[in-house]
Amino acid sequence: MSKSYNAGRHFLQIPGPTNVPDRILRAMDYPTIDHRGPQFSEIGTKCLAGMKTIFKTKSHTVIFPASGTGAWESALVNCLQDGDLVLMVETGHFASLWHKMATRLGIETEFLTTDWRRGVDPQQIEDRLRQDMDQRIKAVCVVHNETSTGSTSRIADVRLAMDNADHTALLLVDTISSLGSIDYRHDEWGVDVTVAGSQKGLMLPPGLSFNAVSEKALALARKGGMRRSYWDWEDQIAANKEGAFPYTPATNLLYGLAEAIDMLHEEGLENVFRRHDRHAAATRKAVQAWGLEVLCQEPKDFSSSLTAVLLPDGYDADAFRAGVLKHFNMSLGNGLSRLAGKVFRIGHLGDFNDLMLLGTLSGVEMGLSKADIPHQKGGVDAAMNILKGD
Amino acid sequence: MSKSYNAGRHFLQIPGPTNVPDRILRAMDYPTIDHRGPQFSEIGTKCLAGMKTIFKTKSHTVIFPASGTGAWESALVNCLQDGDLVLMVETGHFASLWHKMATRLGIETEFLTTDWRRGVDPQQIEDRLRQDMDQRIKAVCVVHNETSTGSTSRIADVRLAMDNADHTALLLVDTISSLGSIDYRHDEWGVDVTVAGSQKGLMLPPGLSFNAVSEKALALARKGGMRRSYWDWEDQIAANKEGAFPYTPATNLLYGLAEAIDMLHEEGLENVFRRHDRHAAATRKAVQAWGLEVLCQEPKDFSSSLTAVLLPDGYDADAFRAGVLKHFNMSLGNGLSRLAGKVFRIGHLGDFNDLMLLGTLSGVEMGLSKADIPHQKGGVDAAMNILKGD
Amino acid sequence: MSKSYNAGRHFLQIPGPTNVPDRILRAMDYPTIDHRGPQFSEIGTKCLAGMKTIFKTKSHTVIFPASGTGAWESALVNCLQDGDLVLMVETGHFASLWHKMATRLGIETEFLTTDWRRGVDPQQIEDRLRQDMDQRIKAVCVVHNETSTGSTSRIADVRLAMDNADHTALLLVDTISSLGSIDYRHDEWGVDVTVAGSQKGLMLPPGLSFNAVSEKALALARKGGMRRSYWDWEDQIAANKEGAFPYTPATNLLYGLAEAIDMLHEEGLENVFRRHDRHAAATRKAVQAWGLEVLCQEPKDFSSSLTAVLLPDGYDADAFRAGVLKHFNMSLGNGLSRLAGKVFRIGHLGDFNDLMLLGTLSGVEMGLSKADIPHQKGGVDAAMNILKGD
Amino acid sequence: MSKSYNAGRHFLQIPGPTNVPDRILRAMDYPTIDHRGPQFSEIGTKCLAGMKTIFKTKSHTVIFPASGTGAWESALVNCLQDGDLVLMVETGHFASLWHKMATRLGIETEFLTTDWRRGVDPQQIEDRLRQDMDQRIKAVCVVHNETSTGSTSRIADVRLAMDNADHTALLLVDTISSLGSIDYRHDEWGVDVTVAGSQKGLMLPPGLSFNAVSEKALALARKGGMRRSYWDWEDQIAANKEGAFPYTPATNLLYGLAEAIDMLHEEGLENVFRRHDRHAAATRKAVQAWGLEVLCQEPKDFSSSLTAVLLPDGYDADAFRAGVLKHFNMSLGNGLSRLAGKVFRIGHLGDFNDLMLLGTLSGVEMGLSKADIPHQKGGVDAAMNILKGD
Repeated sequence: MSKSYNAGRHFLQIPGPTNVPDRILRAMDYPTIDHRGPQFSEIGTKCLAGMKTIFKTKSHTVIFPASGTGAWESALVNCLQDGDLVLMVETGHFASLWHKMATRLGIETEFLTTDWRRGVDPQQIEDRLRQDMDQRIKAVCVVHNETSTGSTSRIADVRLAMDNADHTALLLVDTISSLGSIDYRHDEWGVDVTVAGSQKGLMLPPGLSFNAVSEKALALARKGGMRRSYWDWEDQIAANKEGAFPYTPATNLLYGLAEAIDMLHEEGLENVFRRHDRHAAATRKAVQAWGLEVLCQEPKDFSSSLTAVLLPDGYDADAFRAGVLKHFNMSLGNGLSRLAGKVFRIGHLGDFNDLMLLGTLSGVEMGLSKADIPHQKGGVDAAMNILKGD
Repeated sequence: MSKSYNAGRHFLQIPGPTNVPDRILRAMDYPTIDHRGPQFSEIGTKCLAGMKTIFKTKSHTVIFPASGTGAWESALVNCLQDGDLVLMVETGHFASLWHKMATRLGIETEFLTTDWRRGVDPQQIEDRLRQDMDQRIKAVCVVHNETSTGSTSRIADVRLAMDNADHTALLLVDTISSLGSIDYRHDEWGVDVTVAGSQKGLMLPPGLSFNAVSEKALALARKGGMRRSYWDWEDQIAANKEGAFPYTPATNLLYGLAEAIDMLHEEGLENVFRRHDRHAAATRKAVQAWGLEVLCQEPKDFSSSLTAVLLPDGYDADAFRAGVLKHFNMSLGNGLSRLAGKVFRIGHLGDFNDLMLLGTLSGVEMGLSKADIPHQKGGVDAAMNILKGD
Repeated sequence: MSKSYNAGRHFLQIPGPTNVPDRILRAMDYPTIDHRGPQFSEIGTKCLAGMKTIFKTKSHTVIFPASGTGAWESALVNCLQDGDLVLMVETGHFASLWHKMATRLGIETEFLTTDWRRGVDPQQIEDRLRQDMDQRIKAVCVVHNETSTGSTSRIADVRLAMDNADHTALLLVDTISSLGSIDYRHDEWGVDVTVAGSQKGLMLPPGLSFNAVSEKALALARKGGMRRSYWDWEDQIAANKEGAFPYTPATNLLYGLAEAIDMLHEEGLENVFRRHDRHAAATRKAVQAWGLEVLCQEPKDFSSSLTAVLLPDGYDADAFRAGVLKHFNMSLGNGLSRLAGKVFRIGHLGDFNDLMLLGTLSGVEMGLSKADIPHQKGGVDAAMNILKGD
Repeated sequence: MSKSYNAGRHFLQIPGPTNVPDRILRAMDYPTIDHRGPQFSEIGTKCLAGMKTIFKTKSHTVIFPASGTGAWESALVNCLQDGDLVLMVETGHFASLWHKMATRLGIETEFLTTDWRRGVDPQQIEDRLRQDMDQRIKAVCVVHNETSTGSTSRIADVRLAMDNADHTALLLVDTISSLGSIDYRHDEWGVDVTVAGSQKGLMLPPGLSFNAVSEKALALARKGGMRRSYWDWEDQIAANKEGAFPYTPATNLLYGLAEAIDMLHEEGLENVFRRHDRHAAATRKAVQAWGLEVLCQEPKDFSSSLTAVLLPDGYDADAFRAGVLKHFNMSLGNGLSRLAGKVFRIGHLGDFNDLMLLGTLSGVEMGLSKADIPHQKGGVDAAMNILKGD
């Protein structure tokens, strides 16, 4: 840890990794134990069972010592084959990265475009699936919350679209920046594979990733999928029966995960979601007050875990962010690929509360001023009006 | 540690204990070592030498495993005797507690009153000392920063007053809530005994307290003072030569102290003081914008480490504070003794930065609204105007 | 924390501070909270109530932010006056320090001597008290476990001696190195004031100390005692009713204390005592096998928390200890005052288990060899024979 | 972390994960930061450069958020193709797992067998390679230190064998349980891909794994290898130039890695290796004294990081280990696959010292006795004779 001193607590307001609470850091700060011993088995079992309650699934969850990117790969290689056709939706940078990965792995893809300012259009999916008379499409891959744009796709509606089209494709959903922050229901929404990571709504450092897997997906994996070893679900599920893992797990991150699951249930998942909705609403009010534009243009798709903000033409979002970091010790998210320099992203997910949000918005408001970006004052005031309720 | 979960980081904005930075908590989170071994000796030596740089003294500093209250007692019992006459100034609750302690220890006191809305009046001290023709007064005891009121006394002027009066009394100064936050100069200001504690500007948990001791005070202690054992300076100073202590020291707090000293010097003491001045100025602007009254009425005496705010008559500051704690997860300081229920205190000292302050002020502004306390909006805006500079 | 690297875990086998377990260090590694708020009140209440179960008392316990030395002072200044006569027993260095403190505080003392190789002789106390026809002796002060010699005094027998002599003196007992390690019963044994510290059987870093106080002692304190402020019981007890303290408590050490109390009860106090007895027995077997002499000559008084070992004449215990530290990364206790250079002390108290003890004894056995101190091999073997049971 | 209390420190003497030192746990116990910010870039750069000094390479190192198993996969998929022929040596369970992985990934393998009681035979490799006239064999895969058996293969001799055979196959080496414990020289020994993990000699929790990659291997990867995404070296190396990673890294484990690298260099790698050699020699002396058999039969191949011990026929090593865990709070390694129930493994690697080893060996010696396994006493004594030197 670099020790150059900057007074006070850093505001880590990128849309993940999020501010890791002390309880989780401290839970991780214990000696590593024998991952084949009885004490570990209890922790493993608790984490595996607990993740089902977070995914809202009764089928399977697997935990990889890996980044979320690994759980993307796992989702693809277990139940798809080289040459399979997959329908993906280009909601933004991360959907594009997942698409690129699928292509590298030899999957044939169709990539429905968007303007990066909304979630997926369920109707568009339905239309495409209806055309696929011979069910060539093996999977529909959707990012629930697109971290690069702050747009959330309505997964229940995607499910409905697939049902309407009477299509048997698998539904694969990336919830990396939504799980534990935005309502999500693996079973109820008929998702086959959910992809998640530790460092966002789960409030952990990065290093763990997850799949929730339906019986249908698992059955496909059992008889097919690509050549694989590290990412194999079957190996995981077999070992998981004893609370163990097929290879050495990331023990200390699992200590933290057990604590995170407890914390989410102590607050109550519904309360957690409401808290995120409220903070997102307050943030959008602030953006509106500043006279700036929220990138997401579809109110139904506004993200509750982050807000991407467009700067006026000719203003450099990265210079703005650098100023905020320098003057106010706050990290904001950058614009990615086609949005580079044009937007900044405010993460308001994870272990977060009203005063942290208002500190955050204050930093943005002052930063806009210091960077001479045209804006109105009053963003923080507007957010306070939302947050103080009444 | 109680585990009931409240999302996000608590805002600990009482005027101490302050928010302990992670670096210090982690420095303390090491196994205790042999306090008679060579490794400890290095740490002890570093702490003792380091504290001199914080007190700005070349004479002696002693460190007690005790609260600040203990360092008050130590200051009195080492260089005063039962029946000695001491001049104290009633700047507020803590000055009154020190006065009460002196009385309990058998010291005769004269207690110059104030209206608790300003620091000491150096002229008043000078006048009184001039009357003390036979130098009966053995010490002048002053609280540098009165934590109950947010008034800072000008110690250099007190020194000048004593010099003008040609008086030989010792000068004893309590810097519990100023050291490491507000400029202080033990040697330059001719202070004989300075009293300090760990849990304010030094950014540590409570449990350590300090005296800086002039040669004159030490000489008096050597030949007199009250019966004492735990608080004896001489025992400390003798053991300190080897980086050791006369009885078991609070080892893990000393680990933290060594880190705190490093952090203060990494930022630079002058920068630390400027940061506190700036935050205090922004806070007062916010109070002014709210249409409320800062308790301290003397601009020269405004405290840079906390601001006490008067509520309008008929409004209960404790109910307001309870609402802020409940709704916004922030602890504010209460009104003490005659100020109970009438003021709340905003601590803005220690490991603190702009966005933490604005989160804090936002919590106050929203809390005022929720408690239906008559006020204007715009406090946070006013503070942002100060903080964003230009 | 000095960072010079020495592979592996240091063996801290001085008789305190003891090896602080990770659970306690981590419990302490939480942000400091408002010591006047509701969350603190729960912690304070838990610590105060918990300490009664450790002292085995239903009367009062007080907790000072201070070293054990402070709790000695507190015991004396609350219920004794200048000039009171007190009977103390010179069981070793720490009894002598307590005696010296009493003298400095103006107490008249009678100091029954021993050869520093046994606990107090209850008969000697009874005899002296019988002579004290007019009950001039106001208190009997005894060290339960003399940390400098490894001799434990039988407090129940001291109580009996006092009863036999029909004497009304208070009984003051220092349990700094026995509480939480060796059976102790404040109420059952009719002790009036017990003195304890955090850094031994309570497994905490130093910085907290304790008194358990009988109603009789408290009644005396209420109407008398010496001039005092910091150490006043009455102030503590009044504030304690709300789980609070009269001045800022050492919050983070209290977090650790709450955890320590839980840990002691999870293991069960009787099991804790048996564990210490067993480790002490194994250690003495090792010493015997080496052909060295245990300092304590009275088997009834063998200490279960430490063993002091005499070296043959002409061998320097401090050079031996320095070699053990250098070669084997283990700290052993030194000989104090008249025992300096003649004995070394093995601490086997606190958070300790069989393999830690055998590592410890291995370090001693190898150290004896490296220092060319005449001894037999086989100490570790002898200890293993005890520990493996059967 | 389960909180059932077992007094004293657990002895984690499996051959990894190893005892994580406090410095590393504490280094990891810091808030996660923005992995795209300047502070992270410094840490990333330090880790990447530091790992080169540990691998002793000037070419490339890559760091995956993954178990060691992932680094095996990475080694294979980057520079080999489906159907490539690879020569592997069955030194034990882990070599067999790597072999199984290669097969699953579609690689054609030849698996030279051993009796699991020695390292690879360089001559056997040379012979086989000489037969491979048309250089069909694309890689030789060897486990440097076979964790299941405690046999270390001589990699320099394997290199020599390959050179003698004038063969162009890549040399892939698994150093998971040797790196940072046993001398290893990626460049000097002409290794093409080295595989390593965090949880052994690097003293970290599991969750990071590593490849060191020669220019030759990287060139092959650039133009070939299998379909891959997560494990792609090229993506890593491109991002690493800025101290960054192609996807979210395991930030907090990297904090620990930076600390671990410092610690290894503070002690000095040569000293680290000597320390491990010494502990292994002492352990073997103990095994010999007990009259038991070290599994490894080839003295040149004795492992310095663990020792596997054969029990006499008819005795159950797992029951023995369970007894040691229950009675002495120590975890020993189990026998794997064909060795199940027949051997136990003593890990003596990582952050370890003499007294920890002697505690460990004491636990084994007492455990043998408690389990009524025929043996001689004197193992600990024999180890002490080695360790005390002279």
